[in-house]
Amino acid sequence: MKIIRQIRQMQKMALSLQRKGKTVGFVPTMGALHAGHLSLIRQARTDNDIVIVSIFVNPVQFGRGEDYKKYPRKLAQDSQLCKKAGVDFIFYPSPEAMYTKDYQTYVEVVQLSKPLCGRFRPGHFRAVATVVAKLFHIIQPHIAYFGLKDAQQALIVRKMAEDLNFPVRIKVLPTVREEGLLAISSRNDYLNARQREEAVILPQALLLAHTLIHRGERNASVVIGKMRRLIKRATSGKVQYISIVGAENLKEQKTIKGKVLIALSVWFGKTRLIDNILLCV
Amino acid sequence: MKIIRQIRQMQKMALSLQRKGKTVGFVPTMGALHAGHLSLIRQARTDNDIVIVSIFVNPVQFGRGEDYKKYPRKLAQDSQLCKKAGVDFIFYPSPEAMYTKDYQTYVEVVQLSKPLCGRFRPGHFRAVATVVAKLFHIIQPHIAYFGLKDAQQALIVRKMAEDLNFPVRIKVLPTVREEGLLAISSRNDYLNARQREEAVILPQALLLAHTLIHRGERNASVVIGKMRRLIKRATSGKVQYISIVGAENLKEQKTIKGKVLIALSVWFGKTRLIDNILLCV
Repeated sequence: MKIIRQIRQMQKMALSLQRKGKTVGFVPTMGALHAGHLSLIRQARTDNDIVIVSIFVNPVQFGRGEDYKKYPRKLAQDSQLCKKAGVDFIFYPSPEAMYTKDYQTYVEVVQLSKPLCGRFRPGHFRAVATVVAKLFHIIQPHIAYFGLKDAQQALIVRKMAEDLNFPVRIKVLPTVREEGLLAISSRNDYLNARQREEAVILPQALLLAHTLIHRGERNASVVIGKMRRLIKRATSGKVQYISIVGAENLKEQKTIKGKVLIALSVWFGKTRLIDNILLCV
Repeated sequence: MKIIRQIRQMQKMALSLQRKGKTVGFVPTMGALHAGHLSLIRQARTDNDIVIVSIFVNPVQFGRGEDYKKYPRKLAQDSQLCKKAGVDFIFYPSPEAMYTKDYQTYVEVVQLSKPLCGRFRPGHFRAVATVVAKLFHIIQPHIAYFGLKDAQQALIVRKMAEDLNFPVRIKVLPTVREEGLLAISSRNDYLNARQREEAVILPQALLLAHTLIHRGERNASVVIGKMRRLIKRATSGKVQYISIVGAENLKEQKTIKGKVLIALSVWFGKTRLIDNILLCV
């Protein structure tokens, strides 16, 4: 396994792999790799000749006051995990090389970036789409892998690839969960012991919604109200949003119908956690 | 020479050419090909194994009330010209295939899109950057060719390619001019005989600026004032803008210095003509 830091070197390597007819699977990450990332890497390893993982904590996608500086960086540990998982290349660029002094080009997936997390993180998804476009141009993957944990992100990347005719296939894999069903996330590391116990309320609220809908409830605000009360009653978590939206267009649903995404975001102290489930009603 | 209309077919062909190690030169056009386009095609023919010309009148880059509907379409004539010039493929997609029903992804080169024509054509350069990004993904060129006639467009495409790490080189070739120095443009066809005679005032105004600066004038507003008076005195043309800007950043200059672009836009009846020169002071 090789770690490549220079954009030009990575792109040259990618183009030469392509000329040799190799298929390339790509897993873009911000590092601090966990079981969620490893499931993407395993799938990439199964599907392709070559597996490339990028590790880049993208400054542009963090808002003011967000956790860019404290976001965990663990290159040594990440390298070990990648090596063990059969990764061929880690691409590890610097922020200065990715965003030169007069950088000014952005990719925006307009409608899908507005709801859910987009309401609370202005510019976030524009920054995500932009960095993924850059990485696709550098890595030239045949298939790129994203986790359903960040459902809105996965949907935006897929729409971007489709709209801009990227010659890449987007595979979205299921959220990997701990024993208590808490979705695995690098940000779980920020939680103290009590918050960590309380955080299982996210999947529990989603399960509650699932049960209510399964029993016939179709009124979105009733379901959301019950989720909200469960979280408030049982924990110190502060709900940022709970939304029930169409799974393709992310449009708010009043009456639950078809393929829906139930997504929520909850603060525990200074840590913001998100989770979601897909349902077919 | 082959005309390909399907996006998927074009992309498949492009990827297979790349795997075969062929270099691809790409000339994106809106058709109605003239000597300006042909100079780009000739250069592409010299530089590459394969030459691909796209013909696509991009609806998104025309504003309300602009000339999308009347823009000249001449596929039969264009094909003849391309064939004669040694083009290998014409890519001729439909607007419906390029912009599907829920299309929503745009590429924006923020600062460079604001001045000059950007002030008068909101959304135009975002649409240009977007369609060029799409075409680059479909055609996968090694080198893409643009005319200096549309200097701002060429600069925006070059900046987009650099910022988003497209593996493509942008070549910008000099404006091709008629005998009277009028820059060749598909829109010249809109002019009546008198307007066509008057239109040579654009290069004449640029030559006037060149002479003034050569003689030592460094005050941009003095130069612009004299250009404006020349046009007013000699023709029925209405100036939309005359600007002297830095040739790289397109920032307005008060004192003329370094590498500058002098650009102007003039209306003759309902036809808007643009022209420019680059100077090193």
